[in-house]
Amino acid sequence: MSDLKQKILAMVKDDLVAIEAALADNLTPYLDLVHEIASHILFSGGKRLRPLLMVLSAKLCGYKGNFDKTFSTIFEYLHVATLLHDDLVDGARRRRGKLAAHLVWDNSKAVLVGDFLLARALSISAKTGHMAIIETIADITENMSQGEIHQLMRKGALDVTEEEYIEVIRRKTAVLFQGACRISALIADASQEKEAALSEYGYNLGLAFQMADDLLDYTVDSTVLGKEVGADLKEGKLTLPVIYALKTASAPDREKMVNIIKNENFSVTDFKILIDLLKKYGGIAYTQNSATGHIQRAKKALSLFEPSETREIMLDVADYTLARKV
Amino acid sequence: MSDLKQKILAMVKDDLVAIEAALADNLTPYLDLVHEIASHILFSGGKRLRPLLMVLSAKLCGYKGNFDKTFSTIFEYLHVATLLHDDLVDGARRRRGKLAAHLVWDNSKAVLVGDFLLARALSISAKTGHMAIIETIADITENMSQGEIHQLMRKGALDVTEEEYIEVIRRKTAVLFQGACRISALIADASQEKEAALSEYGYNLGLAFQMADDLLDYTVDSTVLGKEVGADLKEGKLTLPVIYALKTASAPDREKMVNIIKNENFSVTDFKILIDLLKKYGGIAYTQNSATGHIQRAKKALSLFEPSETREIMLDVADYTLARKV
Repeated sequence: MSDLKQKILAMVKDDLVAIEAALADNLTPYLDLVHEIASHILFSGGKRLRPLLMVLSAKLCGYKGNFDKTFSTIFEYLHVATLLHDDLVDGARRRRGKLAAHLVWDNSKAVLVGDFLLARALSISAKTGHMAIIETIADITENMSQGEIHQLMRKGALDVTEEEYIEVIRRKTAVLFQGACRISALIADASQEKEAALSEYGYNLGLAFQMADDLLDYTVDSTVLGKEVGADLKEGKLTLPVIYALKTASAPDREKMVNIIKNENFSVTDFKILIDLLKKYGGIAYTQNSATGHIQRAKKALSLFEPSETREIMLDVADYTLARKV
Repeated sequence: MSDLKQKILAMVKDDLVAIEAALADNLTPYLDLVHEIASHILFSGGKRLRPLLMVLSAKLCGYKGNFDKTFSTIFEYLHVATLLHDDLVDGARRRRGKLAAHLVWDNSKAVLVGDFLLARALSISAKTGHMAIIETIADITENMSQGEIHQLMRKGALDVTEEEYIEVIRRKTAVLFQGACRISALIADASQEKEAALSEYGYNLGLAFQMADDLLDYTVDSTVLGKEVGADLKEGKLTLPVIYALKTASAPDREKMVNIIKNENFSVTDFKILIDLLKKYGGIAYTQNSATGHIQRAKKALSLFEPSETREIMLDVADYTLARKV
């Protein structure tokens, strides 16, 4: 484990324990099957990044109440609901180092338990009684589903632009991070400036997180990642490293890349050739730079707040988003 | 078409036109794929019973505003979202006389468009700004997903009890009808008595509707129904006619029924034998009587309201629920 990760984990240890307890508590009175499937994915080493961001943001705003842990589950449930449905949609085989839920049980159960977790997230947000929170959650849900649909519609397309890529990851990833941070400001009754700063932090962190995630497909081996190498490509999903390299490549190299991408059963050798071309044409570096830019913006947004241990953790989390290997 | 159906349709013609317009309007700015898939199922002869019940209930409470048509779409979107996911879960082949959406496109699209319609329903309800409405919608969503999960968990089980059946149809069907009627009272600022009466009407109508729907599997042929005969049984789903007959049958007849039910590829002859046994042991009559009892309760609940054209339509709708052949 990296030093940064260890440092963060040590500092948020108590929060993570409380979040785990809330995640279990808010599922407890429900059906066995829900528990079983939801637990498979909910309690299998998820990073809890979204609930953690909410709890940290609330602290940063001086929130002293008891509801932040409960509300924070909304973001993990929404996230896991999406994972369950997306793994099915993508035909993904592995998730969090385990066989994907729709393969362990079946499509039906993955669909219904995803629906249940979504419903649970909405019920918890309704119980806040806070209109701005509810509207935000409804908006996040709608955006996430549109982002996923957009991505599905463009499956296999070779002419995906950077703008389109950003639009998809904004919807499917960044709005949830943004919402987790922003809603904390709302429950803490923080100023509009603080709300905007946390919104900016979460949004940029989310974009960078997804870019870093998409980069992992081209930079680490499957034993570390817990999913198949080249999985995005095999799912017909073009991400920024490829989009950028395709744009800047020479005609013959572009053709070489296209041939590999179009072949669903590309070999490991093909994939290595592709990675070399992504490097040659700056796809990897460009994506790293973009992600770094968003992390800088995220960190800058926090300068509105006085220095504190919480702020330090949130800055570290931002750095870790770029550094993470899993 | 039956006289009763013609009479109802004539009386609600304008409302149905307005509901159709609202259903299309609230989808319009969205992605082509959503539109295409959602339209396949949304605009293919659905009865619009749920939005219609909401609009009628609002009228009954003297509501004069303009939002009832928009709010009424919530109930059709929720319904259709569930249909999309359930047809996939059940492996159903036909829906509303057409090939089921997950077979026309694929599982992925049916899942994501279902998610989108659910999200849309929640966004519209959030926009009401009315906490009781939002809580009700969240509660309905949670109940529906739990009802579906419960049903899935008991797929293929032969020891499903009447109580369990009622619990499942309450969650997966009745709460939505109940919510559509009750929420009208809320937006119309009606008295608590009226809210309770409409809630009672919707709840009982929903139970009767599902019982009548489940009976259709054993009483009409597939050309009328638009789905396969014996579909529930082939999906391993025991409904009240079978549950009751299994309980009351003699040991040898019970065994005969169990053998047919257990055989996923039962023949038409087998199915006819089963229907005869359902009749012999009162499964059909018992279910009809239960449904009739719920319709009586639904109609009785409306006696709180002064006689009016709207009340007459709602009484007719209740009668039609029992009489319908599709």
